[in-house]
Amino acid sequence: MAVYNFNAGPAALPKPVLLQAQSEFVDYRGCGYGIIEESHRAPLFEEIITAAEANVRRLLSIDDDYEVLFLQGGASLQFAMIPMNIMLPGRRVGFCDTGEWSNKAMKEAKILGAEIDLLYDGAQESYRRIDGISSWTVPQDLAYLHICSNNTIYGTQYQEFPQSGAVPLVADMSSDIMSRVVDVNRFGLIFAGAQKNIGPAGLTLVIVRKDLPERCPNTVPTMLRFATHVKSKSLFNTPPTFAIYILRLVTDWLLDNGGLAAMQRINEEKAALLYDFIDRSDFYRGTADPASRSRMNVCFRLPSEELEKQFVSAAKAAGLIGLKGHRAVGGCRASIYNAVPLEGVQRLLEVMADFQARC
Amino acid sequence: MAVYNFNAGPAALPKPVLLQAQSEFVDYRGCGYGIIEESHRAPLFEEIITAAEANVRRLLSIDDDYEVLFLQGGASLQFAMIPMNIMLPGRRVGFCDTGEWSNKAMKEAKILGAEIDLLYDGAQESYRRIDGISSWTVPQDLAYLHICSNNTIYGTQYQEFPQSGAVPLVADMSSDIMSRVVDVNRFGLIFAGAQKNIGPAGLTLVIVRKDLPERCPNTVPTMLRFATHVKSKSLFNTPPTFAIYILRLVTDWLLDNGGLAAMQRINEEKAALLYDFIDRSDFYRGTADPASRSRMNVCFRLPSEELEKQFVSAAKAAGLIGLKGHRAVGGCRASIYNAVPLEGVQRLLEVMADFQARC
Repeated sequence: MAVYNFNAGPAALPKPVLLQAQSEFVDYRGCGYGIIEESHRAPLFEEIITAAEANVRRLLSIDDDYEVLFLQGGASLQFAMIPMNIMLPGRRVGFCDTGEWSNKAMKEAKILGAEIDLLYDGAQESYRRIDGISSWTVPQDLAYLHICSNNTIYGTQYQEFPQSGAVPLVADMSSDIMSRVVDVNRFGLIFAGAQKNIGPAGLTLVIVRKDLPERCPNTVPTMLRFATHVKSKSLFNTPPTFAIYILRLVTDWLLDNGGLAAMQRINEEKAALLYDFIDRSDFYRGTADPASRSRMNVCFRLPSEELEKQFVSAAKAAGLIGLKGHRAVGGCRASIYNAVPLEGVQRLLEVMADFQARC
Repeated sequence: MAVYNFNAGPAALPKPVLLQAQSEFVDYRGCGYGIIEESHRAPLFEEIITAAEANVRRLLSIDDDYEVLFLQGGASLQFAMIPMNIMLPGRRVGFCDTGEWSNKAMKEAKILGAEIDLLYDGAQESYRRIDGISSWTVPQDLAYLHICSNNTIYGTQYQEFPQSGAVPLVADMSSDIMSRVVDVNRFGLIFAGAQKNIGPAGLTLVIVRKDLPERCPNTVPTMLRFATHVKSKSLFNTPPTFAIYILRLVTDWLLDNGGLAAMQRINEEKAALLYDFIDRSDFYRGTADPASRSRMNVCFRLPSEELEKQFVSAAKAAGLIGLKGHRAVGGCRASIYNAVPLEGVQRLLEVMADFQARC
């Protein structure tokens, strides 16, 4: 039985990537040992991290105005590192609250002494939508503006990005990085935990405009300064080498399959299939406002919590795993990141139809 | 040709661990997908992290007075996290400087405002020895005392630990954790990057006495507080799941092979073979003082830098990799962590004898 993985993260990885990593796990390309055992200063690993950065730059069309960093600690550590590095004395920090992750980021900025300017408060509508983005006015004296581009828990996603003018736009793209074409030049800083679309847990991608790390005061510890990692090209200390190796393979796979434009088309097709099915159903019900729907995390409810529980079990028995919604909101959620194939979504629709027919 | 890996870190992993991880890489124990793709909240991963902690506790005889945490960022992030969490207002922090890593830790404590009490200054003798430990007097008003138990660059190792009395002893055991029996109750906090003796890069083991995280002021960001990770059992955010899985396999392997007492005997045997050979030679010369020698990192010189370069190349051609010394000191270094088998050391001696004979 084919198994399809709808986990919200850590999540499915492309099957060709897994097979390649498996085949060379104990003996990397004839060197006689595994890449997981290789020194981060050795030429074999240097080739990998160089290729990983080149792939990221190529996929996202990143120019020399930006640094590409491979860090640790996930988005949660970025919630602290970003204010530590790019807050400015006497300047407020802007936030758009579209769910748990922007909220957590705001909490850390407050701990670090930032005064917050809340430009958008999605909590008022239970985070069902991200509304009127094009009409948001961004005060030009903010140190930066923080957004979360895709909200895994509520299944919403920015369909466009705010016009922040001269204010650096900081985006947490943990759950939709490389799932669609974005113009990096619109942003001051983009960060993403790798474990949804681009690699395993334990690796954080940071793309930062070159002027921003210079803001960091010298009271910030060395490891928490972006400038440290810029200077050492992500090799200040031992980086998560195996995770970077997997990211390199995933980005190779993305390039081999047409890059982000192709990926965006497939992701739109997958999401449309699922939302259309839900919209036509009087049994399943989507929770996010249609205009704000995520193409990564499709959140839906059934007529009762008991039926939701039964559905998650029935799907699991049919080889579809990870369909339980986040504990904060309940319900069901299908995370359909890059590595979830179209056939996985088609199979999900069959199982959903079958479950409904049996109820 | 058998290849033996003498890298200083990331380093050799036990072959049975690599083979098992390879065999279940794409399909973990029949679940139909890889553990690298599994949610950190799923029962399959819960079993792994629970077993990993239990293994660490059993191997090091850790009792309920201590927490065992799986973090990210390596020893370098601990250099900042530790003072952030356990400094005390108006109390100095003690350091014993035995090389680059204790030095870097001291630098971070200073950035964070600590006043330093340097109890031992190994720089005066180029870090060749760690001297008179039993006679060190530890002022009882220190917030804590920081040491580095094994110094990879200089090839020295604490043969005993200082008597710190009521002062919490903090030990960076990145390069000798689980290579020998230690009494955890002597320490307030032990930390170790996993990438030398217990797993891949990207995972940091922290063992901390339960009272210490309570010292942390509320100005410290959530991710950088030990208390956060204690409360959530290392699942506050997505941990490096695959690295924890490998650590679980490595600790299974350690238990299957007699635990740390057995490992210590083998490590002593390996180190003795190598040091005895060097001591009998008039060609190779050990750099560390014999009384302070590391059983993990054997540092040695040849008559000239040119010969050292030739030796490293000849050894590589013979399947022995990673023998170049750290760039800070030059020379040669054989890192003989737990996963480097006795046969690897025997083979190294053959190659060393052969190289000498040809010179």
